[in-house]
Amino acid sequence: MGALSENLTQFLIPIAALVGIGFALLQWFLVSKVKVSSYDQSNGYKAKLIEADEEEEGVDNLEVSIKCAEIQHAISVGATSFLYTEYKYLGIFMGVFAVIIFLFLGSVKGFSTESEPCTYNQGNTCKPALANAAFSTIAFLLGALTSVLSGFLGMKIATYANARTTLEARRGVGKAFIIAFRSGAVMGFLLAANGLLVLYISINLFKLYYGDDWEGLFESITGYGLGGSSMALFGRVGGGIYTKAADVGADLVGKVERNIPEDDPRNPAVIADNVGDNVGDIAGMGSDLFGSYAESTCAALFVASISSFGINHDFTSMSYPLIISSMGIVVCLITTIFATDMFEIKKVSEIEPSLKRQLLISTVLMTAGIAIVSFLALPSEFTLFDFGTEKLVKNWHLFFCVAIGLWAGLVIGYITEYYTSNAYSPVQDVADSCRTGAATNVIFGLALGYKSVIIPIFAIATSIYVSFRLAAMYGIAMAALGMLSTIATGLAIDAYGPISDNAGGIAEMAGMSHSIRERTDALDAAGNTTAAIGKGFAIGSAALVSLALFGAYVSRAGIESVDVLTPKVFIGLIVGAMLPYWFSAMTMKSVGSAALKMVEEVRRQFNSIPGLMEGTAKPDYANCVKISTDASLREMIPPGALVMLTPLIVGTFFGVETLAGVLAGSLVSGVQVAISASNTGGAWDNAKKYIEAGGSEHAKSLGPKGSDCHKAAVIGDTIGDPLKDTSGPSLNILIKLMAVESLVFAPFFAAHGGLLFKVL
Amino acid sequence: MGALSENLTQFLIPIAALVGIGFALLQWFLVSKVKVSSYDQSNGYKAKLIEADEEEEGVDNLEVSIKCAEIQHAISVGATSFLYTEYKYLGIFMGVFAVIIFLFLGSVKGFSTESEPCTYNQGNTCKPALANAAFSTIAFLLGALTSVLSGFLGMKIATYANARTTLEARRGVGKAFIIAFRSGAVMGFLLAANGLLVLYISINLFKLYYGDDWEGLFESITGYGLGGSSMALFGRVGGGIYTKAADVGADLVGKVERNIPEDDPRNPAVIADNVGDNVGDIAGMGSDLFGSYAESTCAALFVASISSFGINHDFTSMSYPLIISSMGIVVCLITTIFATDMFEIKKVSEIEPSLKRQLLISTVLMTAGIAIVSFLALPSEFTLFDFGTEKLVKNWHLFFCVAIGLWAGLVIGYITEYYTSNAYSPVQDVADSCRTGAATNVIFGLALGYKSVIIPIFAIATSIYVSFRLAAMYGIAMAALGMLSTIATGLAIDAYGPISDNAGGIAEMAGMSHSIRERTDALDAAGNTTAAIGKGFAIGSAALVSLALFGAYVSRAGIESVDVLTPKVFIGLIVGAMLPYWFSAMTMKSVGSAALKMVEEVRRQFNSIPGLMEGTAKPDYANCVKISTDASLREMIPPGALVMLTPLIVGTFFGVETLAGVLAGSLVSGVQVAISASNTGGAWDNAKKYIEAGGSEHAKSLGPKGSDCHKAAVIGDTIGDPLKDTSGPSLNILIKLMAVESLVFAPFFAAHGGLLFKVL
Repeated sequence: MGALSENLTQFLIPIAALVGIGFALLQWFLVSKVKVSSYDQSNGYKAKLIEADEEEEGVDNLEVSIKCAEIQHAISVGATSFLYTEYKYLGIFMGVFAVIIFLFLGSVKGFSTESEPCTYNQGNTCKPALANAAFSTIAFLLGALTSVLSGFLGMKIATYANARTTLEARRGVGKAFIIAFRSGAVMGFLLAANGLLVLYISINLFKLYYGDDWEGLFESITGYGLGGSSMALFGRVGGGIYTKAADVGADLVGKVERNIPEDDPRNPAVIADNVGDNVGDIAGMGSDLFGSYAESTCAALFVASISSFGINHDFTSMSYPLIISSMGIVVCLITTIFATDMFEIKKVSEIEPSLKRQLLISTVLMTAGIAIVSFLALPSEFTLFDFGTEKLVKNWHLFFCVAIGLWAGLVIGYITEYYTSNAYSPVQDVADSCRTGAATNVIFGLALGYKSVIIPIFAIATSIYVSFRLAAMYGIAMAALGMLSTIATGLAIDAYGPISDNAGGIAEMAGMSHSIRERTDALDAAGNTTAAIGKGFAIGSAALVSLALFGAYVSRAGIESVDVLTPKVFIGLIVGAMLPYWFSAMTMKSVGSAALKMVEEVRRQFNSIPGLMEGTAKPDYANCVKISTDASLREMIPPGALVMLTPLIVGTFFGVETLAGVLAGSLVSGVQVAISASNTGGAWDNAKKYIEAGGSEHAKSLGPKGSDCHKAAVIGDTIGDPLKDTSGPSLNILIKLMAVESLVFAPFFAAHGGLLFKVL
Repeated sequence: MGALSENLTQFLIPIAALVGIGFALLQWFLVSKVKVSSYDQSNGYKAKLIEADEEEEGVDNLEVSIKCAEIQHAISVGATSFLYTEYKYLGIFMGVFAVIIFLFLGSVKGFSTESEPCTYNQGNTCKPALANAAFSTIAFLLGALTSVLSGFLGMKIATYANARTTLEARRGVGKAFIIAFRSGAVMGFLLAANGLLVLYISINLFKLYYGDDWEGLFESITGYGLGGSSMALFGRVGGGIYTKAADVGADLVGKVERNIPEDDPRNPAVIADNVGDNVGDIAGMGSDLFGSYAESTCAALFVASISSFGINHDFTSMSYPLIISSMGIVVCLITTIFATDMFEIKKVSEIEPSLKRQLLISTVLMTAGIAIVSFLALPSEFTLFDFGTEKLVKNWHLFFCVAIGLWAGLVIGYITEYYTSNAYSPVQDVADSCRTGAATNVIFGLALGYKSVIIPIFAIATSIYVSFRLAAMYGIAMAALGMLSTIATGLAIDAYGPISDNAGGIAEMAGMSHSIRERTDALDAAGNTTAAIGKGFAIGSAALVSLALFGAYVSRAGIESVDVLTPKVFIGLIVGAMLPYWFSAMTMKSVGSAALKMVEEVRRQFNSIPGLMEGTAKPDYANCVKISTDASLREMIPPGALVMLTPLIVGTFFGVETLAGVLAGSLVSGVQVAISASNTGGAWDNAKKYIEAGGSEHAKSLGPKGSDCHKAAVIGDTIGDPLKDTSGPSLNILIKLMAVESLVFAPFFAAHGGLLFKVL
């Protein structure tokens, strides 16, 4: 037993969650102090839009503010209506898949309602398999709903904050930064706290039925992770296609053909582009990181439930993953105050260091936090399940597991920053290669992405080795949770990116002055880097989570060893390694086709609407929004089906060993593709921004906007869009979703799987 | 015992090899009948360059022929001098590495000269480890020399044939095709027969010492594969950097900036570009496929030596892999006659089907050949070594193993053709996406490459499963050899590509008429596809070979199982999966940097040599050749070191299990990267050619040369160059070389490896 009593644990976890929610609301309140006209459709605009004494720019503000409000309203309406449509489809999917889960898992023991002997806690009686089927289904639905809620809330916050960031940019880059950052924090804290709270409540409710059968209880809870990640998949893929179809389409006609700036209001796809940032980068990413969080917690809980914690019914030790997350919320709260209240940004060049400092502060504080939790919540010595044998573990072993995950995250973050920020030589080299045209830009960019994989993989491999050696699969799950323990801060700096991007778009559309646009551009350039860092975290944690889930799956499916040198496993391994390519091909082709449609529509409008180029007529934004919506909803189905059906088909027809191979193969291959894709894309985007900003002699020699170099850089940026925002970030969901799905269905595959090999 | 006696086997194998060599010489003689002026530096040109009655084009032929001879001479001199320089460096490497092999393997038993009990053939006495060290070293040197010889001969043939193909193109596309194809056949048959002969002689010479110790004999023979592949690695990488630096550099300034055609003699990099085709695509590829052939034979022989064949000293059955290769030479000979004498090419559209038919004919005939060999050479029932247990196998099982590899090769070839030929929709879609610019072209091209991985991987997985189930690791090795059994035909159609490419270059440089250039372009477009097919074969066979070598390594290192769920193996797996990315980053960056240097030089010459653009002054070709040479020799070292040192470092410091993980990871990940890279590159090249040729309404709507669409296509083509000719094809060497190196060093790693984990 640790020092923390069960009652205290039961009290502290929800309190931490509530503190997180409270802090998020406080930040929201602070953001809301920036006044934007409430767009009132019946009465027009309110007269006073922003308090006069806060203004720095001339008297044209009123009109600009009205425009901002109008644009914000259009973006918000577009995003909300897309998400509603998307959720309608996902509702159907959820219903169907819930039935599948229930039927598959129920059939394991032929829908028997009789209790049976436990698998691990020998000598005791556990609840019937039918109950596990029912509760897994409920957990799945809960996870899916929480995920949807997370994405939706994030989108609402972002569309609330974007115009406020633009307006604040008139008062200086520091003020704008604070607003964007606070809004990101709202999202980060709401998601982290919400995930923790729902999971905590579910466990306690499930416990009412399961009582002492913790094996069944935590087996069912894994359905929560499955629900979270399957929504995240569709969110990322659908949102990713939406945003990039619009973005690529808008750029190809606007920037390349018509030579009008990015986000110019004359471009018919511009609203769709900004809507896309919110549904793809914000809602999708929110669902994604929530999914990782839910899965790593579920993996840890499942492994713990079949260890001495579960057997001895030590609730506090069982709750160790949840207590770590609670501590994470507190740590991130303190970290956020550093950014919002301790330091003030005065210059553009301070933005990136400030965001980077957030990562460092949260990591250092959290290391202390982990130590405290490990010594208070865990007994000094205990045993863990290690594939059939018991492993003796000490509490400081677990401290190291969580801490190494946390620090590996920091390493990944820093490396990602190095390879995607235009403050360092890699991106500058890519920008320089634009001198000889788009081809060398692409070659250098691809090479950069490949190279950026090296150190993160070593960081992941080291964490795996250390945590595996110290605490077997539980160690891996906890390392993943360690990397995600500062998720609130991670999400805050990640969400900051698209908010700034939108803010820049609004500034351009509202016709605000050049200096405002420069400020929002600087925010956005840092945002590209933080978005890449966020993706790095998402991928790194996904790798660890998947491995932990994989381990749990192997235990639950009763596989003794996953020997590469058996044909069943090896074919799984090589086919699994192929899946990320298949998936990327689908998503990239989808973006490409949707973008072509968008291009045609934008061209059509430019050609057929008189006065559009001159700014005297308005484009038909709605049509472009519709094209993106239709394309993304239609195109998200095949890649979604690939991911959701692969484990079911492989498990049912080829059996548990081949499925184990598929999981391992897709994990080790997918991580590489994902990291390289998102870093390549981030680097191209920032190489372009580097040339545009012209902040150094070197950058000036490549620019200005519209030069041949710049055109080559724009091509790279456009290619990078689907890589960094559609295929890359969806891949981490691919690997973890297949793993959690396999885990949930493992009892079925173990009982009835491998039909094909049985026949042959 | 099979029906074939040992004496007959001893007779038939060298006879088949000699028949192959004889057939190659016959083809060479036929090619040589096309007369090109022998460029005589002291006396100028001979007057009569081509027989007058064969000419179709006007009287300007004489001058054109002189030019062709001059250009051919320049290319040949450039290629020869590069290869000499390269081989000088490689000679040093070979010497150093031979010492390493001897010292590492000699140290296994402390350089003891005493005989010791055999590992597998229990109860008997085997030769001392020191002898194995010495003979492995000798085999390594022999393999390296054979590989170098193969590459050099290939280059000589290709530079002999290129101008002849150009001159024949005046007499029609069919005549030119035959010359290019015959020249390819010279290379294919020489390489296949040469490889077989050297291996056969080595085995018989080694046997003089080893006598009945076949375990030691075939253990030493694996050094031959290591020598072959390590030379191939440097050949591919060095040659790949050479050719693409020149190609990219020439295109970027010539086609993009100066708007002059490809291969225009005014372009200073044009000779370097053509030299590159010969040292990279021909010499590199020759070494590569020879390496695959040598390794799969060695893997099969090693596995067989520890099975009942080796224990019972059944020489005919042991020689089964060599007899299959002998049969392959005969089958390919018949197949070649179909292309050269049975059908005549009359139209451009018949070229590709004719080459495709070659694949089909050789596969069908070879299937019968395999059946004959399997029933004559093998006993009807025998036992094979299957990781410690004995597996009972029938002769028709082995027939299926070899045949499935062969047919999987055909499937890979056909799929590659589908994805890279401009006769089908995938490439046409890519060409169509050029309407919206280079960015969509790149997005669609990358997606195409990713998608093209799917079916080849299923084909490979199926062959692995079937052959593994039927005959364990021996089955895999034989499946690999089955895929390579028609190597003579494969090489012929593969070498045909660069020869046609060169022929086109010579036509352009010699200022020949537009219609000639059109014919050579058509040959070249088919050549892009066959080159991609050749790469597909190389990669597919490399995957099978590596797996077989991997299995042999695991046996030899005494590993019981390669369980993914042990930390040592898993970290190896994920790091191994990362290596192809690291390697690709290095090679692509090298091409990029070398191309930038080339661009600067070409620009400098255009700016500083008066009259160059007008064609009144000659460019300084030699300087560009020097830049490519220096860059490739310098830049091939880091990627080469990565591949050669990884197994040594991992084995020595992390031990045999982690190394097993690294091999499996790099295999399953590298195959995907390699296939997608080479197909993407091939598709871009042919999308460009599709637009240039304007052979359909659709193609015409995208063209002509110089249109925006065409410019976008040229960018894609340039990006694809390093993918398809440098990083992609080198990756298959990476995976098999690491495997064969691990196999050779396995006794050392097993005895002394894993230092780091021993300390920790």
